[in-house]
Amino acid sequence: MAGQSVLTPQSDDFPKWYQDVVAKAEMADNGPVRGTMVIRPYGYSIWERMQAEIDARIKRAGAQNAYFPLFIPESYLSKEAEHVEGFSPELAVVTHAGGEELAEPVVVRPTSETVIGEFMAKWIQSYRDLPLLLNQWANVVRWELRPRLFLRSSEFLWQEGHTAHASAADASAYATKIHLEVYNDFLERVLAVPTYLGIKPPSERFAGATNTMTCEGMMRDGKALQMATSHELGQNFAKAFEIYYQNEEGQAALCFTTSWGSSTRLVGGLIMAHGDDDGLVLPPRVAPIQAVVLAVRDDDEVNAACDQLVSALGDAGVRVTKDQGRGSFGRRVTDWEIKGVPLRVEVGPRDLAQGLVTIVRRDSREKLAVSLAEVATTVTRLLETMQTELFDAARRFRDERTRDVTSLEEAVEAAQSGFARLPWDLIGEAGETRLKAEAVTVRCLQRRDGSIPSDESEPDLVAIVAKSY
Amino acid sequence: MAGQSVLTPQSDDFPKWYQDVVAKAEMADNGPVRGTMVIRPYGYSIWERMQAEIDARIKRAGAQNAYFPLFIPESYLSKEAEHVEGFSPELAVVTHAGGEELAEPVVVRPTSETVIGEFMAKWIQSYRDLPLLLNQWANVVRWELRPRLFLRSSEFLWQEGHTAHASAADASAYATKIHLEVYNDFLERVLAVPTYLGIKPPSERFAGATNTMTCEGMMRDGKALQMATSHELGQNFAKAFEIYYQNEEGQAALCFTTSWGSSTRLVGGLIMAHGDDDGLVLPPRVAPIQAVVLAVRDDDEVNAACDQLVSALGDAGVRVTKDQGRGSFGRRVTDWEIKGVPLRVEVGPRDLAQGLVTIVRRDSREKLAVSLAEVATTVTRLLETMQTELFDAARRFRDERTRDVTSLEEAVEAAQSGFARLPWDLIGEAGETRLKAEAVTVRCLQRRDGSIPSDESEPDLVAIVAKSY
Repeated sequence: MAGQSVLTPQSDDFPKWYQDVVAKAEMADNGPVRGTMVIRPYGYSIWERMQAEIDARIKRAGAQNAYFPLFIPESYLSKEAEHVEGFSPELAVVTHAGGEELAEPVVVRPTSETVIGEFMAKWIQSYRDLPLLLNQWANVVRWELRPRLFLRSSEFLWQEGHTAHASAADASAYATKIHLEVYNDFLERVLAVPTYLGIKPPSERFAGATNTMTCEGMMRDGKALQMATSHELGQNFAKAFEIYYQNEEGQAALCFTTSWGSSTRLVGGLIMAHGDDDGLVLPPRVAPIQAVVLAVRDDDEVNAACDQLVSALGDAGVRVTKDQGRGSFGRRVTDWEIKGVPLRVEVGPRDLAQGLVTIVRRDSREKLAVSLAEVATTVTRLLETMQTELFDAARRFRDERTRDVTSLEEAVEAAQSGFARLPWDLIGEAGETRLKAEAVTVRCLQRRDGSIPSDESEPDLVAIVAKSY
Repeated sequence: MAGQSVLTPQSDDFPKWYQDVVAKAEMADNGPVRGTMVIRPYGYSIWERMQAEIDARIKRAGAQNAYFPLFIPESYLSKEAEHVEGFSPELAVVTHAGGEELAEPVVVRPTSETVIGEFMAKWIQSYRDLPLLLNQWANVVRWELRPRLFLRSSEFLWQEGHTAHASAADASAYATKIHLEVYNDFLERVLAVPTYLGIKPPSERFAGATNTMTCEGMMRDGKALQMATSHELGQNFAKAFEIYYQNEEGQAALCFTTSWGSSTRLVGGLIMAHGDDDGLVLPPRVAPIQAVVLAVRDDDEVNAACDQLVSALGDAGVRVTKDQGRGSFGRRVTDWEIKGVPLRVEVGPRDLAQGLVTIVRRDSREKLAVSLAEVATTVTRLLETMQTELFDAARRFRDERTRDVTSLEEAVEAAQSGFARLPWDLIGEAGETRLKAEAVTVRCLQRRDGSIPSDESEPDLVAIVAKSY
């Protein structure tokens, strides 16, 4: 618990650093059943802020929240052939309930396309009912043999959107809207994580999708993390669940559906995209505590000044907490740094005698001596600045570590410390196999200008390849 | 779908009326697995408002949200003898996962005292860590043989609070605080449902509790619904999970724990506490839509006036939506009534020519002709009035239907249409058995002044008895 090296340095062992941060910042613990996770209050408060920001964007995009059952009849999964093949190995199955063996086993949802498809078929009558735009916040279960907290857990929390449309064009436009206006906007503006947007190659698509869009973020070790995905499902699920509507001519027509999700994995991404050797670095917009007012020591005058500052900062809309000043100052600073709180307002008797306090930025360690009257405006301004600068720094890091290459060999080499970008034509199925042998995968396909192609057969696409979580 | 009798009248068949409302207001559907439930967007938006109001109160009471796993090792349940006995018949058991049979079956949580107890033991070291105040929003599963949407479903959504304290007095005080400041405050101020507060008799306690507090609401058919419960668990779970702390003298001491919960059952309670023969009647504070601006017909001038009103009401902080005026006016009115929207602002060309609109209250059907300029202030005022008057009406209804009686026979008779109140001394174990034979139970024990006793052995307690959901 001593001052300096509480965490394994990133450069020594990045996975160990990650484990240390998750434990010491009190983010999460392993659950008693293999692969499950306990999200502790500090980790959960970050997830709550993510939920609020994502949920507001989903509602702005016109989707409504609903809730579908945890338990799905085993037979539903089999209705879409690729889907059942993709998920079967990961399913948890309930065979006994209410003291008896069940006539038909039920699976714990790994995702809800099937059960929601069943109800879309029931609720959709005519073209007037379209588009049907649904979302749910829920837990899902995918049995994990190599679990890692937040990144890969047997149970995780997520939102899953499910929509039905009258045409392929409308479905595609809506999935793209979600991808840009919900996911990418949230990632850039709130998490301060720049991503490469694109589509997955066919080999990496969601089981049952005709097209999968992804946002790929770069972690501090140069590996990729898929932050969110949006799927066009074509008519695959509409056929399997008979999701028909009556069109304007009075004829029965099949719907086109989409689904899109983001999960508690984002918490892992947040940790790895900004964290440093001293712990978490939280962008102000997602920080549950944006500023801590820290009494250098537990003294009446100091505490009175702290209380005034906490109240002034609270009034200014800052999420603020007070550290009363008990115990070692150094250890308390270390703890707030591990937790990634953006700003410390340090209040000590000597500064106070001059009417000053010291504000310290978590990201740059820059220190400012600020007069008491200016604390609230300075904190508010610094929080804005930090939000922007964290994004800029992450983008610089990503750009510096993305190499344009012209062969698979160079791509594999670049992927040891970052991303490689190369023409999709140079890869193909055989190339994907060769990359995979080196634990490198095609993360996404983009147009040369970075925009999202409509499918993998567009000419002149580039592939972003990397090692990944 | 015609005008008048869309729903079965309450007096004909109350359970059928309930089913009709749930279906026609598009609140929920039965899920494909027996006893499970699909919460549709309108029902879910009501639940979201309940969550926001309850969550804010829980946070104000100092508890923090966290998340614990869905899956619990079967062995955990057995650690507390009464607990396993209470829940065993209702458990859903996962025996296979990841394509293999599990070495130890896991149960789907019916409630989380056990798994949270395990982590409390790990996190609590000294008296400085107490009280530990946790809450989680989650789904739980209790296999149901006679399911009813919202009221009794195999899977339901809820919040469950779990706290650990250094003394029995502190645990009891905190459970009482939650019961009054979270549950009762929410029920009275938001749901406008008056309740009888008290403790359960020993026969009706939560499995593993030493004391269970309840809020019992009266439904429109005179039956009781348990709206929320708060349990003192004594040291039962602390012993089972070894939740020790080091006290100020440096000695190991066992904690005292509490748990408290409220669930999607509240949605059923809301429907049955205020609904009438035309559908839901929603108190304004919990209504997802507080006012609908209804074009009498689809006409440019009418729609322009509607748009202005929607924008003025939105600016005034009213949750408002517009009904464009397509299709039969009568049918649209019926639909908004079924959904229980508190106020309709009806905009027709004739009224508009005089600068007027008609505001109609859902509860009293009172109609007001109001000038365009006064719509926002009138709506805001009426929403406040309705919130208060709905609570007053529900309390009058409850009081009129609560009879003070002096024998079990009279109590059974009173319970055919409402509640009976009688001295607890008159009942005893034998009396409870006699009441149960008539499908009547002791809902709670109170002091004569309506306050919550500390245990069932206090002298001079009264029992509230009723039929119940």
